[in-house]
Amino acid sequence: MHEFELIDRFFDRKERSAGVKLGIGDDGAVLEPSPGFDQVQVIDTMIAGVHFPVDTSAADIAYRAVAINLSDIAAMGARPRWMTLALTLNNSSEPWLQSFAAGLYEAADPHELALVGGDTTRANQVTVTVTITGEVERDAALRRSGARVGDTIYVTGTIGDAAAGLQLLQSGEHDAFLVSRFLRPTARIATGRRLVGKAHAAIDLSDGLAGDLKKMLTASGVGARVDVEKVPLSRPLRERFDDATRMRLALTGGDDYELCFTALPDAVADIPGITAIGEVGTSRELRFFSYGDIVAVDDSGYRHF
Amino acid sequence: MHEFELIDRFFDRKERSAGVKLGIGDDGAVLEPSPGFDQVQVIDTMIAGVHFPVDTSAADIAYRAVAINLSDIAAMGARPRWMTLALTLNNSSEPWLQSFAAGLYEAADPHELALVGGDTTRANQVTVTVTITGEVERDAALRRSGARVGDTIYVTGTIGDAAAGLQLLQSGEHDAFLVSRFLRPTARIATGRRLVGKAHAAIDLSDGLAGDLKKMLTASGVGARVDVEKVPLSRPLRERFDDATRMRLALTGGDDYELCFTALPDAVADIPGITAIGEVGTSRELRFFSYGDIVAVDDSGYRHF
Repeated sequence: MHEFELIDRFFDRKERSAGVKLGIGDDGAVLEPSPGFDQVQVIDTMIAGVHFPVDTSAADIAYRAVAINLSDIAAMGARPRWMTLALTLNNSSEPWLQSFAAGLYEAADPHELALVGGDTTRANQVTVTVTITGEVERDAALRRSGARVGDTIYVTGTIGDAAAGLQLLQSGEHDAFLVSRFLRPTARIATGRRLVGKAHAAIDLSDGLAGDLKKMLTASGVGARVDVEKVPLSRPLRERFDDATRMRLALTGGDDYELCFTALPDAVADIPGITAIGEVGTSRELRFFSYGDIVAVDDSGYRHF
Repeated sequence: MHEFELIDRFFDRKERSAGVKLGIGDDGAVLEPSPGFDQVQVIDTMIAGVHFPVDTSAADIAYRAVAINLSDIAAMGARPRWMTLALTLNNSSEPWLQSFAAGLYEAADPHELALVGGDTTRANQVTVTVTITGEVERDAALRRSGARVGDTIYVTGTIGDAAAGLQLLQSGEHDAFLVSRFLRPTARIATGRRLVGKAHAAIDLSDGLAGDLKKMLTASGVGARVDVEKVPLSRPLRERFDDATRMRLALTGGDDYELCFTALPDAVADIPGITAIGEVGTSRELRFFSYGDIVAVDDSGYRHF
């Protein structure tokens, strides 16, 4: 099977999306950026056995690869436009590729995200690199560095589900909701768009709430307090895990691909699906409280001092 | 070593290039496209042991990864602007990374190509995926599909050197010129820019002159004749290989990353470094001639009928 036959068969839908003057099939794609908009570019790689279990279905691999890149686009407040794909296969069958393409488009189509280029190679480990180009109103991209003292800290959705789902997958257990939260994260594109001009700083949660929030605070030169009892947890997470475990999953688990942002409460009062979890303060530290008592958070979870 | 430390240390030069509003370090890069230009996006992956020998130096790996993507940008007539890098490492040392970064910038800097984003991962095989975004005057991108009957077919540089260099590398022999033509291809950006508005069709030579020219002709719905004795060969290639071998390397060897294009001779008379090798004709076939006699070209070279 030749690279171009493969691409032709499964990935070349002859995109007629807005702004795509020339898609897959030439030396490069030709695109028409929207006047008055800045462009946001993101890139993320997922490797079998490293970022997802090797027996993950092709559709889930593709879906997740697109979704985690969309999440970066959401964290910048941009609307997704164009995607390129570098796909390294080992012994792919035609059904595998068909399933992969289906998962890819399932993640992309709701956002009118067009696949405009790609490269297919062969090696030992399945590797998927996706790039997405988005657009955001000029000089309005959300950054990590804009958090201000007095801001409230928010997250979207519920936190900790994906890490729980991965843990279940790895132990051979199942929970449809939690596992799908790992395999098929929901990129918060609509929320990101609504935060433009309202949020002061934003980041997407890939490495865990505590670590990613810390990155945002460091970039902004501020500190914060988080009240861990305010961190929104899903019912399946609460039902399946004890308090210590679910807080560890939520604070340090990672793979949530929810947004964490800071804003003044009045500015975001009408945005659904967000939860206030703390406040930006003058101290350069990130401190966690549980019902008013200060607690220490590390990779094994949190503990009272 | 964490991903972000690695990126910080070697790849984050806090690019202040034109159009880069925000480079490495946030969820995405923020870029400002030039008004009145279309955008060209390309992506290419190189894997150790597949696309280059596993003992290739880090600097050469990086240089080549950038150069082959630049070559795609050149084939579209665009000027390169921004680059992203997905780098999968196995057991990288600090010197390896330093060498990689040096090779990357050595290839990028002459073109004012800025690294604006990246993702670093770990697996068994070193894998380098580079994307480049370029810009070309609106609706002026060179495509594969524009070749017209009566056009002359041209190539840049000399052909077959890279395949010869790879063959020498694999057999443990050395020739500084030929090996460097494989490891450090020259992307013909300046020529590509001069071809805008003049060439009718263009492609870059990655899979071999015969195969890539055929792709361009098929996309254009035309045929052509090539006079193989006109294909420009370097002195080292002529000195090291017999006639049959060097013609096989030139016609089917691949990895040249020279441009092949069609144009009217008057339109490109003032462009240096190009050689006419044939003509576009009405027949849908691609036929090769050697001093007027028709010859057959396949993967083992060419032979007289």
